[in-house]
Amino acid sequence: MRLTVIGSVAFDSVETPFGKKDDVLGGSATYASVAASFFSPVNLISVVGTDFPGRYRTMFNKRNVDTSGLEDKKGKTFRWRARYHYDLSYAETLSTHLNVFEGFRPKIPKNVNSKDNLLLANIDPELQDWIFEKIRPKGLVACDTMNLWIEHKRKALLKLLKKVDLFLLNDAEARQLTGHTNLLDAAKYISSHGAKMTVIKKGEHGALFFSKGLKFMVPAYLLEKLLDPTGAGDTFAGGMTGYLSSVRKITDSALRKALVYGSILASFTVEKFSVKGLLKVELKDVEDRYRHFEKLTKF
Amino acid sequence: MRLTVIGSVAFDSVETPFGKKDDVLGGSATYASVAASFFSPVNLISVVGTDFPGRYRTMFNKRNVDTSGLEDKKGKTFRWRARYHYDLSYAETLSTHLNVFEGFRPKIPKNVNSKDNLLLANIDPELQDWIFEKIRPKGLVACDTMNLWIEHKRKALLKLLKKVDLFLLNDAEARQLTGHTNLLDAAKYISSHGAKMTVIKKGEHGALFFSKGLKFMVPAYLLEKLLDPTGAGDTFAGGMTGYLSSVRKITDSALRKALVYGSILASFTVEKFSVKGLLKVELKDVEDRYRHFEKLTKF
Repeated sequence: MRLTVIGSVAFDSVETPFGKKDDVLGGSATYASVAASFFSPVNLISVVGTDFPGRYRTMFNKRNVDTSGLEDKKGKTFRWRARYHYDLSYAETLSTHLNVFEGFRPKIPKNVNSKDNLLLANIDPELQDWIFEKIRPKGLVACDTMNLWIEHKRKALLKLLKKVDLFLLNDAEARQLTGHTNLLDAAKYISSHGAKMTVIKKGEHGALFFSKGLKFMVPAYLLEKLLDPTGAGDTFAGGMTGYLSSVRKITDSALRKALVYGSILASFTVEKFSVKGLLKVELKDVEDRYRHFEKLTKF
Repeated sequence: MRLTVIGSVAFDSVETPFGKKDDVLGGSATYASVAASFFSPVNLISVVGTDFPGRYRTMFNKRNVDTSGLEDKKGKTFRWRARYHYDLSYAETLSTHLNVFEGFRPKIPKNVNSKDNLLLANIDPELQDWIFEKIRPKGLVACDTMNLWIEHKRKALLKLLKKVDLFLLNDAEARQLTGHTNLLDAAKYISSHGAKMTVIKKGEHGALFFSKGLKFMVPAYLLEKLLDPTGAGDTFAGGMTGYLSSVRKITDSALRKALVYGSILASFTVEKFSVKGLLKVELKDVEDRYRHFEKLTKF
C-alpha cells in the first residue's frame, strides 16, 4: 500500500557535542519519507522555496518517494536551528523560520488516494487536521507531534487525536500533554482522548506501544557512536508506518515488528548528521540490524 | 547451589514524592538475600546491633536465608537516610551512620563453602575484597557497588574487579567509574579491567548485559505505581545471582533469563517501601510477571 506523508522539508543547522552542520537537509517529512520508503512507496506532500536544490528532489524520486506533492513556492525553505547538549534527548531550538510554510495549504496531488495510509508527520496540528479533512483517509492514520504544538496548539492537537489511529510522541511530550509522570497513565489519557494506538518514544531507551489489545516494549539498538539525534523520532514514525503499509493486514505481530523497524531505522539516522545515516544503508543493512537486535533481546 | 551474600543490613529512613518511612528494614544484603531466596538457599553474612528485632531474623530464616553469619554486635544497626525527588533514579543521601559496621570483619560461618556462589552486595570494596580473600570462592563471584565507593574507594574497587566474574552497577555509576558517557564504551572499560561479565542497570529503562560472547538488553517491567526505588539495584543483583545459583550450568540462555528475573524482582521491590513488595509475593507471582514480560517484549 502507498503511504502519504505530510510534514516539513527543511534546512537544519544543528550543533551537538560531536559536531556542527549548517543548512543540511532535514524536516519531519524528509526523515519520515526516506525511512518509510525502505518498505513502501511514498507520496510526499510539503513545500520548499526557490533555494531548494534539485538534487534533493532527485534523491527522493530515486528512493520511491513521489514528489508531485512537494510544492515549489517563491521564497525560502523552512529553516530550523538547534543545539543539543550532553543530554541528547532534548533539542534547544535557537530559531525557527517557517518561510514558505507560513500559511501553507497544499494542493493534494492526483495520485494521493483516500485508501492510502497517511502519516501526519510533525507539523502544526491545524495543518495536519486540514490535510486529514481534505483527504478523508480510509487507511491507517498516524500522527506525530512535538513540544511546541503541545504548548501552543493543545486544543487543535486534542481535537485531531480523535481522528487518529496511531499517535506518536516522546516521553517528555507525553508527560507534557497529559500531566501524568507515569507513562502508563499518560498512555491511558491519550487513549481516552481518542487515539486507538499510542507509541511513546524514549530515545536511547527504546519505545512503548499501547492499544486496547496490546502492550509492547522495545529497547533501543545499542550504538557505539551517536552524532546527531535530529530526525530520530520522525524516522521512527516513518519506518513504523512504512512497514505497516507493506503488510497485508495490521496484526499484533505486524505492530510489534513495525516498532522494531522504527527503532532500527532511527538507529541509522542518529549515527550521522542530516539524513546521511539513512541514505548510506540499504534494506539489507536494515534487515541485518533487525536480526542482530533479535539476538540482543531474545530470552 | 547455595549463594553466600555479604552486604549491609540496615534501617532506612526514606522520603519519596509518594511517602515517607522511618527506620524500616533495608540494606543491600537484605534486599539481595530475600530476592535470591526465591531461587536458591542463601547464607547471609552481615552485622546488626542490639536494636535489631528478632522478627526480622525469623523472616530471613522462614525464607531459606541462613542467618548464622548475621552477627550481633553491641551498638546500633547501620542507618541510612535519603530523599528522592521526581527523578527517582537518584537518591540524595542525607546521612549514613555505619554504627556496628565500623571496622566490621565478619567471622565466616561454617556452612559457607568455597564452592558456593558469592554475591558481594553493595558495601565498602575493601570489605568485599577481605571476604573474597577469606572465602577464596570457586563458584560464581558477583559484585555490586555504588557511587560512594567509586568516588572514595576507586583503587580498591578496580583491584577487586580483577577477581569478579559478574560486576553490576547502574548507568550513572558506569559513567562515573569509566569516564565514558557511551555505555558500550563503559562496558569495554570495565571488561578491560577484569570483570568477565558486566550488568549496567538503567532503573526504569531496564538493563544491559555484556560479556565476551554475549550482549543482551532487557527493558524494565512497566509499573502502574512506584513508591520507593530503594533496594531495586540490590534486588536485581540478588535475583540475578539467586537464579544463576539454581541452574545446573550458566549458559547464555540462563544469563538472559537471570537478567529478566532480576528485573522482575526489582519491579516488586519498588512497588512498596522497604522489602514489603518482595515479601508479599511468592514464586508463582514472579513467574506470572515473567510470562507477562515475555508477552510485553516478544516480537
